[in-house]
Amino acid sequence: MGLAATAAPGRTPSLDPLTRLVGDDLVRVNQRIVENMHSPVALIPQLAGHIVAAGGKRLRPMLTLAAAQLCGYTGDRHVALAACVEFIHTATLLHDDVVDESDLRRGIATANAVWGNKASVLVGDFLFSRAFQLMVADGSLEVLRILSHASAVIAEGEVLQLVTANDTGTTEDDYLQVIRSKTAQLFAAACRIGPVVAGRPEAEADAMEAFGLDLGIAFQLVDDMLDYSALQADLGKTVGDDFRDGKITLPIVLAFARGDEAERAFWRRTMEAQEQGPEDLAEAQALLKKHGVLEETMERARRYGEAARAQLARFPASPIRDALDEVVAFCIARGF
Amino acid sequence: MGLAATAAPGRTPSLDPLTRLVGDDLVRVNQRIVENMHSPVALIPQLAGHIVAAGGKRLRPMLTLAAAQLCGYTGDRHVALAACVEFIHTATLLHDDVVDESDLRRGIATANAVWGNKASVLVGDFLFSRAFQLMVADGSLEVLRILSHASAVIAEGEVLQLVTANDTGTTEDDYLQVIRSKTAQLFAAACRIGPVVAGRPEAEADAMEAFGLDLGIAFQLVDDMLDYSALQADLGKTVGDDFRDGKITLPIVLAFARGDEAERAFWRRTMEAQEQGPEDLAEAQALLKKHGVLEETMERARRYGEAARAQLARFPASPIRDALDEVVAFCIARGF
Repeated sequence: MGLAATAAPGRTPSLDPLTRLVGDDLVRVNQRIVENMHSPVALIPQLAGHIVAAGGKRLRPMLTLAAAQLCGYTGDRHVALAACVEFIHTATLLHDDVVDESDLRRGIATANAVWGNKASVLVGDFLFSRAFQLMVADGSLEVLRILSHASAVIAEGEVLQLVTANDTGTTEDDYLQVIRSKTAQLFAAACRIGPVVAGRPEAEADAMEAFGLDLGIAFQLVDDMLDYSALQADLGKTVGDDFRDGKITLPIVLAFARGDEAERAFWRRTMEAQEQGPEDLAEAQALLKKHGVLEETMERARRYGEAARAQLARFPASPIRDALDEVVAFCIARGF
Repeated sequence: MGLAATAAPGRTPSLDPLTRLVGDDLVRVNQRIVENMHSPVALIPQLAGHIVAAGGKRLRPMLTLAAAQLCGYTGDRHVALAACVEFIHTATLLHDDVVDESDLRRGIATANAVWGNKASVLVGDFLFSRAFQLMVADGSLEVLRILSHASAVIAEGEVLQLVTANDTGTTEDDYLQVIRSKTAQLFAAACRIGPVVAGRPEAEADAMEAFGLDLGIAFQLVDDMLDYSALQADLGKTVGDDFRDGKITLPIVLAFARGDEAERAFWRRTMEAQEQGPEDLAEAQALLKKHGVLEETMERARRYGEAARAQLARFPASPIRDALDEVVAFCIARGF
């Protein structure tokens, strides 16, 4: 599709330009993360270290670093605040692992599978509190406002996801509300912090927040598509986690709406009653294919990605702006 | 024992004088709590309302209100901040319910038993985030520092409690570290907020913090004693929850230290291996009685209570000072 064209021609879009441009800062973010996981209670750095080392892409803190750079910020505050963003993200993952009983995240055993639910909940609480301590040390009530608001919205989104689980009556609006809250809100907050620490006008903060929000929605749409895709298997991740959990994502909402009575009965049995046999995931994938809903999910992701990129036009052309543009392309391209 | 003598002679110490003196403020705290539990996601106010309505004594927010009054504060900020304290406490309870799989708290079904672990974790996260939003609205970085620090220490204490569970090698120091962190820290923070909002000197803030810390330790010692006591049954609560959970509290630490080899084998089987038969709780109670450890636990509580009361001497005599003195007597008297 056309989006990949924003990366250099012939090159697959990647996070490499971003990683190059914020790499030095990211090293310092990782140092802050390790320092601040410390506790006399040894299980805390052990368990937190497990999930932090598992690493992921550090996409959210990189967004904070990049947004600060885009706004010409030359100080030091963005490093600790990017660590806060990652701590909040990690706490959410730890609590989400409890919730979803997922056995695999990022291809390794979850903290919860190794240490149990109890420890995951409590270490998540520790990281979350530690994030607020770091923000207090930074001293900006505006940043505290942004991230306490984001945290409340994330929790609302997670609860809404729980409420809509196993409910084939879930609407597109419900679904969008879930991903906007549980995923996109932290992307938006991570991005807004950049212009805020740089002391830029409200309009720029709003633009970066909108960039993050649309990027986050696109990111989650692609994730939810990938859970039913062969591409996921290529990445060494399990396919069908959402299906097994009865999580109602956009592909299911669309396939249910377009299905005939026999198909709806299939979705009700597998997603609502959670009665699943060994052939059911393949059957689900066949139905999603029949109705073209994975392509349609990707088309929505592409449109949110375009909306995100449009926000960047407000900022002067620069290598970091190009890198952020490519982040969008990268997030979409994961789905092709 | 002597402590009850600080209440009017012939009267059992109670929270009534405190409730009378801060009652109007407490009504407003409860209003704030209800307002701020609101969310478009209906399960949040439902579940939070369940635990908030279960109510408990509202001891922690009352301490904030009382400490402010003791320091001559005449403004309005203590009301929202007392609500923050209760939200943090409630979030901790919700997460602790997940952790301990306790079936009974305050004599009613736990939120977790009714709605499941998932919802308890996430609604706890929501309340915790909402507490920080309220603090940001209040605007004091000092209060944010106090409560973010307390939250991190509480989480550390809960993890340490988890680590020491089922471990008969737990020392008195370990145990004290657990209760100081998981319980007393929030009492201390609740009390410190009073002089802080009143703009009183550091020494008064330190005195109220020390009052709260010692009161909190005394409170938890009594709680841990009561878990093995017939008094608990009189209050309609189950006896032996800690025993069944393998939680190593002071009575167990002391009884294990004083026991002969046969007794230690009993504690290892029941607390470490968690192999418990129907007669084991009665046997445990008999061993605690044999070594006089419940009385000794109460004696420690009494001493922490005295230390708490000594802090009040720094403040001028007043009805609220007497009421706080009686709170200490009340907390101890629960154990007699």
